[in-house]
Amino acid sequence: MSTVVREPARAVATAAAAAREWAEAAPTARARALEAVADALEANRAELVAPADAETRLGPVRLNGELSRTTFQLRLFADQVRGGEFLDVRIDRPDPQWPTGPRPELRRYRTALGPVLVFAASNFPFAFSVAGGDTASAWAAGCPVIVKAHPGHPELSRCTAEIIQRALAGAGAPDGVFALIEGQQAGIDALRHPALRAAAFTGSERGGLALARIAAERPEPIPFYGELGSVNPVVVTPAAARARGVEIAKGYVRSLTLGAGQFCTNPGLLFVPAGDGGLVDEIVRLLREVPPAPMLGDRIAQAYLDGARRLAGRPGTRKLVWPDDAASVGPRLLTMDLSEFTADTDEAAKECFGPLGMVVTYERPDEVAAVLATLPGQLTASLHAEPDEASELADVTSALADRSGRVLWNEWPTGVSVTHAMQHGGPFPATTAPTTTSVGTAAIERFLRPVSYQSWPAQLLPPPLRDDNPWGVPQRIDAEDS
Amino acid sequence: MSTVVREPARAVATAAAAAREWAEAAPTARARALEAVADALEANRAELVAPADAETRLGPVRLNGELSRTTFQLRLFADQVRGGEFLDVRIDRPDPQWPTGPRPELRRYRTALGPVLVFAASNFPFAFSVAGGDTASAWAAGCPVIVKAHPGHPELSRCTAEIIQRALAGAGAPDGVFALIEGQQAGIDALRHPALRAAAFTGSERGGLALARIAAERPEPIPFYGELGSVNPVVVTPAAARARGVEIAKGYVRSLTLGAGQFCTNPGLLFVPAGDGGLVDEIVRLLREVPPAPMLGDRIAQAYLDGARRLAGRPGTRKLVWPDDAASVGPRLLTMDLSEFTADTDEAAKECFGPLGMVVTYERPDEVAAVLATLPGQLTASLHAEPDEASELADVTSALADRSGRVLWNEWPTGVSVTHAMQHGGPFPATTAPTTTSVGTAAIERFLRPVSYQSWPAQLLPPPLRDDNPWGVPQRIDAEDS
Repeated sequence: MSTVVREPARAVATAAAAAREWAEAAPTARARALEAVADALEANRAELVAPADAETRLGPVRLNGELSRTTFQLRLFADQVRGGEFLDVRIDRPDPQWPTGPRPELRRYRTALGPVLVFAASNFPFAFSVAGGDTASAWAAGCPVIVKAHPGHPELSRCTAEIIQRALAGAGAPDGVFALIEGQQAGIDALRHPALRAAAFTGSERGGLALARIAAERPEPIPFYGELGSVNPVVVTPAAARARGVEIAKGYVRSLTLGAGQFCTNPGLLFVPAGDGGLVDEIVRLLREVPPAPMLGDRIAQAYLDGARRLAGRPGTRKLVWPDDAASVGPRLLTMDLSEFTADTDEAAKECFGPLGMVVTYERPDEVAAVLATLPGQLTASLHAEPDEASELADVTSALADRSGRVLWNEWPTGVSVTHAMQHGGPFPATTAPTTTSVGTAAIERFLRPVSYQSWPAQLLPPPLRDDNPWGVPQRIDAEDS
Repeated sequence: MSTVVREPARAVATAAAAAREWAEAAPTARARALEAVADALEANRAELVAPADAETRLGPVRLNGELSRTTFQLRLFADQVRGGEFLDVRIDRPDPQWPTGPRPELRRYRTALGPVLVFAASNFPFAFSVAGGDTASAWAAGCPVIVKAHPGHPELSRCTAEIIQRALAGAGAPDGVFALIEGQQAGIDALRHPALRAAAFTGSERGGLALARIAAERPEPIPFYGELGSVNPVVVTPAAARARGVEIAKGYVRSLTLGAGQFCTNPGLLFVPAGDGGLVDEIVRLLREVPPAPMLGDRIAQAYLDGARRLAGRPGTRKLVWPDDAASVGPRLLTMDLSEFTADTDEAAKECFGPLGMVVTYERPDEVAAVLATLPGQLTASLHAEPDEASELADVTSALADRSGRVLWNEWPTGVSVTHAMQHGGPFPATTAPTTTSVGTAAIERFLRPVSYQSWPAQLLPPPLRDDNPWGVPQRIDAEDS
């Protein structure tokens, strides 16, 4: 075991010991620590991309871009820390005339939950792994983070962890703000540790549900933020298929096969009109030209092949694109009609992680809205339509927004921008916590807990709640912005 | 069965059918519906207080006050609906220079989760029951509500439900925005209904955990907001005991016996210094003068007597106040020293619903902070200290704030004000969702789910996300307030 890897019990205990100092750190100090990590990752770019490429086969172009995304994310959360809006400071002054009886002085903010366990994902070895979005947002909230390394990229995980530890130490952050642990049992042990306060996970439905159960069955259950799977339905209207079939086919094939289809927002489920003007033919033609791309690892490749075979074997399913070599991880395309799909929606809409598309053909547009309303929860849902159809699409819009966290108009779901208005979440099984996001600045909210101080003396109040407001954070006083 | 009571399957299905219209209603329409309910409850005050008193024995003074609190709460949430801040609207304009690649147009807000099941509580037949805070905040969020009536006040529940239904119909709200169901099995059936989207519960740890498990084990798990129990620790410093022993004793006895101790914020656990200058003697004296008050019902009274006996039977526990009549529901006071308490904190700190106080004596103030840090999660924690001690109390403050949702300085926890900065929640078992509150305007957040619209056409956008902003809600554009 590398010296950077900790025992789970020690990792959580050390995190708990650091929790108060980190939670109470001034915004500038915490922001600088996040930026120090970003700087250090940038400074070690070559040292990071090499093991990442060797372990994930994602290629240096994608990996360099993902590393940039990761350091941007750390800096964006550093900005959030400095801004202080996430603290949601509310101050109610005493009011003897308050209708329910004299109102006491109340000062409420959101403070760090405490030690957070992050289960790293395989498919984003930087952006959803050791120094990824969950880590950055939990740190920003003021929580120490224990990362359970993904076994798909152990060397990269250790290398990242070493860089983080040096950077945090250099920035004066307390020991315990970060730890790396390895192995399934270590993850479970850390999840069961009494001092742990929350966990975040990105991965399979089966793994995520098992961990969610452990979190719920602790003597003190804790929040578990799991992102488990999504087939990201795409609906093409008859008018759009007629007007832009070739363009839609091109966009679909690009999005479906990007990164060997190993994205949580991969558009695995496509609804097209039965008389589609050649859209599906064009997809088939283009998809046959896409060569197999290496997948993240042998287990993921095997799961892809097994999943594809299972879906292909369902009654009513036909193969449109299927490699002659059964062991090839090349793209696959299946089709069924809407009545076959609705016969067992949950199974037909199961995620098959990889470049597999399921094309569902429909006869009447109004049928689609009804079926969309019955889909399992999704991260995204996309609609390809013509501008002059908008007046007929209120029901479809409503159904898509009801079952997913992000809806896209004439765009493709892969490529999740890290912004203020991004929503990356959705009803189960997209996530276990539909009221939250794991990408974008709002991700910080998962790791905060409100506390009100009633008539508390000024010198013992957390700085954001004081009248002299030493950190200059936004304060809402008597429900008015200051 | 009264005509106002629905079958659970029909109640949830009707709620689901109404969900979209209610979620998309203009703020003025939804606010007016909430106010119509408040008006109708006020107009039927006598008709409501009579059955409430007959069924709960809480007396007309308390019940009239509670009804006022309930209608105030509905109006406060109506104001929230009109203000629109809870929508948390964020608009990111397209930005081709965004560091992680061209940023698409993203418009994010929080929309209603969908049908919500509210399990009414016994101890607040108005404020935490049929038309209580959970119902008001879920309605404000735009969710239809199904209330599972508490069996402790069935007539009042039906009477309230009839008034609500008439008021909502009069305000033009769709049928299905409200339904009443009765019976344990009906509650479970509704909780398992596939169209249900969230549930809120206030009650016992045992009942709450059973329901939380059902919510988690549904094919589509849903958020479950349970408030389960709290002993609301109070710490008295040696200096405060010396300086204000009589005053503290008086405040403690009043808070402990208010409403026969049937408050979730009842101060059941009191830490006092061993040389307390007569504080405990004074508490004993005052408590012996408090006559038994009728409890909400026979089951609750029996549970109080059983719980008190169990706590009294623990090794190291001594009785300070104990009625001669073993069947009396009069106040009880027990004591143990800190080492006995820490021998099994979880058991010694278990809530006994009713007027029972456990006094824990400590020798050294620094021991107390360490013990507080190991307490189960609490709704509140109070500190009675002298102003000049503040500089020594940072550790105690931190421990109290870490284990509870609201900390009080020289005040008592009963009497939860309904305000903007109120926090009524806390780590488990105080609640199952430590990141939320069930009292105060922030309670609305439990019933909202973020959705982002990417490049969506203006005419299909929800009104709060449109550039012309027809409802005039606050919009944050490119992370700046509009």
